[in-house]
Amino acid sequence: MRRALDAAAEAARAGEVPVGAALVLDGTVIAVAANAPRALCDPTAHAEMRVIRAAAETLGRDRLEGADLWVTLEPCAMCAGAIAHARIARLYYAAGDPKGGAIEHGPRLFGQPTVHHRPEVYAGIGEAEAASLLRDFFRERR
Amino acid sequence: MRRALDAAAEAARAGEVPVGAALVLDGTVIAVAANAPRALCDPTAHAEMRVIRAAAETLGRDRLEGADLWVTLEPCAMCAGAIAHARIARLYYAAGDPKGGAIEHGPRLFGQPTVHHRPEVYAGIGEAEAASLLRDFFRERR
Repeated sequence: MRRALDAAAEAARAGEVPVGAALVLDGTVIAVAANAPRALCDPTAHAEMRVIRAAAETLGRDRLEGADLWVTLEPCAMCAGAIAHARIARLYYAAGDPKGGAIEHGPRLFGQPTVHHRPEVYAGIGEAEAASLLRDFFRERR
Repeated sequence: MRRALDAAAEAARAGEVPVGAALVLDGTVIAVAANAPRALCDPTAHAEMRVIRAAAETLGRDRLEGADLWVTLEPCAMCAGAIAHARIARLYYAAGDPKGGAIEHGPRLFGQPTVHHRPEVYAGIGEAEAASLLRDFFRERR
């Protein structure tokens, strides 16, 4: 989660909503990325999507069985769907997101029968730091 | 939808689940793509995601206000989330997907208060041909 939080701080400095993610397989960090839809002109370039895509490319396969995904904010529906498609084994996220989250809020996607893979989910690790990055970012923009 | 159906047929020939999509802005086709997670080693490489990413890159912006997305199968939660993030104006899809769809099935994502943009949705255009491509593909693999 340290690597994900550092990536989130970098995103804030780049003017992007501060969310970061890291993908780990067998104890090795395969990919780290920050949220970057504006910089990349890509509405799908959330931190989770970027580490999943980078790890799949690095590993040469479209399923990441056994992988851990660490992210500083509760994933949205798009990212939760990608986590299921990628067969991520364990999802760790820091802050909950009542406005856009899809794990413990909104559609609670991993409880839906049409979502065919459910990772183990662990929330709250690094929550204070992740939430503070987001709060500071939005306060400065108001 | 013709372009999307042709892309779906190409996907089938490539051994991928036959789904195709096209993105149109002001009457011009900006991007056409087929579903290709296996070929690209990318679990997020659904047809919808690929045309959204390609169009955003082509247009140089992460929001595709005013755009029409044509796709041969009801989008899943990942793709529906991306459609919302990209601010797609109108979604046209051919066949419904009771097993994995997230528009009229499962989480019915555009009815969720945590999803902050809802396109107009038109279903059923080209349904018979899209469904037949999928049926033939899965029949051959059984």
